[in-house]
Amino acid sequence: MAESKKPDSSRRSERSRRAIYEAALALVGETGYARTTIEGIAARAGVGKQTIYRWWPSKAAVLLEAFLDVAEQAAQGEPLIPDTGDLEADLKLVMRATVDELNSPPYDAPARALAAESVVDPGLAAEFVGRLLEPQLQLYVHRLRSAQDAGHVRAGVDPRIALELLVGPLAHRWLLRTLPLTHAYADEVVEYALYGLAPRP
Amino acid sequence: MAESKKPDSSRRSERSRRAIYEAALALVGETGYARTTIEGIAARAGVGKQTIYRWWPSKAAVLLEAFLDVAEQAAQGEPLIPDTGDLEADLKLVMRATVDELNSPPYDAPARALAAESVVDPGLAAEFVGRLLEPQLQLYVHRLRSAQDAGHVRAGVDPRIALELLVGPLAHRWLLRTLPLTHAYADEVVEYALYGLAPRP
Repeated sequence: MAESKKPDSSRRSERSRRAIYEAALALVGETGYARTTIEGIAARAGVGKQTIYRWWPSKAAVLLEAFLDVAEQAAQGEPLIPDTGDLEADLKLVMRATVDELNSPPYDAPARALAAESVVDPGLAAEFVGRLLEPQLQLYVHRLRSAQDAGHVRAGVDPRIALELLVGPLAHRWLLRTLPLTHAYADEVVEYALYGLAPRP
Repeated sequence: MAESKKPDSSRRSERSRRAIYEAALALVGETGYARTTIEGIAARAGVGKQTIYRWWPSKAAVLLEAFLDVAEQAAQGEPLIPDTGDLEADLKLVMRATVDELNSPPYDAPARALAAESVVDPGLAAEFVGRLLEPQLQLYVHRLRSAQDAGHVRAGVDPRIALELLVGPLAHRWLLRTLPLTHAYADEVVEYALYGLAPRP
């Protein structure tokens, strides 16, 4: 209903925006961040490059918003980390979903291109972390705080650090391809992080 | 004494090898992996490019060996992970040393360049992991197995997975520059990994 009320120009804008996102992600995945240009994105999306310059200040801004859009679609409106009261089950669910996302080809290539460029470009890294990564990490902070309130996480634990024991190992395997990234691995990381490596007295 | 017995040609070779390593690391740190060439390394090192081709099959091979050389010098002949019988103290020592290494400018730029290229190049990643990273990770496996034998790590824990809860968080902070990489952070990661996030009964 809302869609049908929109004027034609707004619908055309939405189609262009979607085409620009798709072109940007495809190009950065195929040729890398450095060789992706506004001109190349415009040509592939079938829009004038002025259309892109009117909406975004830089190549990095286009790519990050394209990537945010993919992340939003992947989430499909569901909260990224459920809170059923069972922290272990909730973390395994989100960590397995993250494994699936990292292993999916449409996500993998542009995500690697953006991550690789962030590794060597502090300015892009600040954008990438501030707009894309940190908001996702804060979902873990929120879930771990709720678990702490329920007595399921030790009182002295800092959730902002604790989450890195969960996402750090996944990112390490994915970025450096040390070993296969599987659901079984996600489960083990959750179990090790929650209960520790040292024996319980 | 051993040095003085070497023929002149061998000493010249060693000087050339050292100059090539230094040129390779400087160039990759300054211009990135993709723009570093054998010709550029040769010019900066003051050797003919045939000298480089005679000793190494590829640019990746030169850079990885240059990097292995830096890592060996950083270790300065000491075992990278001590075994004093106190797992927590030993891990904090090596994790703090890793933080210092990652934060040191001569290491940071070439390491970032190699890591970034490995993120998008599976062939280089296999070399990087196989020759440089995995041997370092196996030092953690060895130390964690020894701790397991001593009853300081739970019997069911897989050391190859457990180590990723230690190095994964450091690598994540370093690669993506989410938050400062400090000794205090290294200590907390070790404590969280050993004792877990869940309360002890």
